[in-house]
Order: sequence, then C-alpha cells, then structure tokens
Amino acid sequence: MFVHKDNMLKANFKFPNFTRAFAFMTEVAFLAEQQNHHPNWSNVYNVVEINLTTHDQGNVVTQKDHTLAAAIESVYQKYIVD
Amino acid sequence: MFVHKDNMLKANFKFPNFTRAFAFMTEVAFLAEQQNHHPNWSNVYNVVEINLTTHDQGNVVTQKDHTLAAAIESVYQKYIVD
Amino acid sequence: MFVHKDNMLKANFKFPNFTRAFAFMTEVAFLAEQQNHHPNWSNVYNVVEINLTTHDQGNVVTQKDHTLAAAIESVYQKYIVD
Amino acid sequence: MFVHKDNMLKANFKFPNFTRAFAFMTEVAFLAEQQNHHPNWSNVYNVVEINLTTHDQGNVVTQKDHTLAAAIESVYQKYIVD
Repeated sequence: MFVHKDNMLKANFKFPNFTRAFAFMTEVAFLAEQQNHHPNWSNVYNVVEINLTTHDQGNVVTQKDHTLAAAIESVYQKYIVD
Repeated sequence: MFVHKDNMLKANFKFPNFTRAFAFMTEVAFLAEQQNHHPNWSNVYNVVEINLTTHDQGNVVTQKDHTLAAAIESVYQKYIVD
Repeated sequence: MFVHKDNMLKANFKFPNFTRAFAFMTEVAFLAEQQNHHPNWSNVYNVVEINLTTHDQGNVVTQKDHTLAAAIESVYQKYIVD
Repeated sequence: MFVHKDNMLKANFKFPNFTRAFAFMTEVAFLAEQQNHHPNWSNVYNVVEINLTTHDQGNVVTQKDHTLAAAIESVYQKYIVD
C-alpha cells in the first residue's frame, strides 16, 4: 500500500471510526519505537496518513523506511476495516 | 464471552502478542470513558482479563455492566486474533 | 497556546521524546471522543501539531474548537516537558 | 516505590482520573516492549497496580524486573498526579 513518491514512502489507511484508527496508531507507535524510526504521520477522524523518510540521511528513502513500511502493512492486515 | 459470576461479568481475551492486546485495551478504554463506567481489568502479555461490576450499587452487576460488556465484545469481534 | 489562523485554531506541542508525545496524544484522543470533535493532527517524533476547525460548519472555527482547545491546553499543563 | 514482596516487585500508582492513568499505562507499555519484559498489571479507574516477576526464571525477581521497575518509576516522576 505504501508508494514511493517525493522521496518518501506514503500511504493512507482508513478505518470505520476514530477509535479503531487510534488503536492502529498505537500499534504503529510500538513498531516505530521498536525500530527506533519514527513516521511523519497525521490523522483526521478515521483516516491515518503515514509518510516515511530517513531524516538523518537527508530525507531520502532507506532500508529503515522499507522495514517500517512492511511492518505497518502487516499490522494493518490484522484490522477488519469494514 | 462474558459470564456472570461472583457478582461480576467476567471475560478473558487472548491475542497473538502484547501490542495487539494493548491496542484492544486502548479501544476498551475509549468505551469505558464514553460510558463513564470503568472496568477492573488486568493484563499479562497477550491476555486481558476484564471484570465488570457496579461499585456505587454495592458491587453488583447492573445494566451499565451489560452495556459495557456488549460493547467490548463487539470491539473484540473486529480483532483477528490468530 | 492555540492561535486562530487560516480559519483554524493551531498549536504545536513539544515533548522530551516520542513516547511522551504519544501518551499526550492518547489523552487528546480521549478528549476528542468525549466531545465528539476530532482534530486534524500530525506528529513527528517529539512534536505534535494540532489544527482545529469545524468541518460541518464549512471549516470555520466554532465554539466546539475553542472547547476542545481549552481541554487540550489543560491536559498539556499536566505534562512535565523538560 | 516498588517493594520486593512475594517474589515480585510490587507498586501502586495513583492518578487524578482514568485517562491520566491510561496515558501512564501507554508509556509503561512502550517500556515493556522495549525491554521485552511485560508486567502483570491491573487497573481500576485511577489506580494502576504493577507486579513484576520473571516467569521464565520460575517467577522470581531478576535484574530484568529491577530494570523495568526503575524505568517505570522514572516515567511516573514525569506525571503531575494532583
């Protein structure tokens, strides 16, 4: 679901409501801490937008971003979203 | 899944790991706040145990407990647990 | 801390690390659900940016935004941020 | 604040309300994941009880428990609880 664009891996995730979206964000937060790599992300109600880039490499996409993206997609598969 | 026992509604919920369990707890926390009715609950790794009773009615099961139990079960249905 | 700008109430909140920032976000999420009014918000590591506007009034600032802004500021006062 | 008793490190933490308690729990959850060592813990409204023991060493207190206890106490210091 992530696409490589503007030197970022970008994805939007949609949920039935805010609390499901926030539960997902909580799991993503655990992944980010675990990998010590943190997303640029935003939320409005049931939509979560995640942009991944590696700041200390000059804001380009690195293996760190691909690893986090894969883990986020794997978590999202576990959400029943409709 | 909740059973009425010892003047409480009691249930155990199991997850593949700690972070899934904690995401579920986050959603339950939203329900509890929304209904202004809070569980006695505990967690060890991937298991969440929830006991519901109404303190200000002398620790008996009331409609408040049944309403929260139903909402929790509904959230749990949305978790892919294996 | 919120300022009225571009038809939004806008604020940035800073924390010592990601996990403190996310704990704050969790409390804000409870407020949003409680008031049934949800922020446009984003996070990068230790910074949380919150923009409040009322969508169903045509994206202008209403009393709902002021009420949520005040509650968020009150929560932030409880965070020791350095 | 943790005391060594019954082969566990045990502590109770008190907060002004449920949402503060849950924000604290969220930070403790990050620590637990980070250290790959998870508490036996429970919550009722504004009180969080945490018991630490090392299961795979036969439920005795080990260095893992002391390390997590110290990190939890350090997080708690950052909470303004009254």
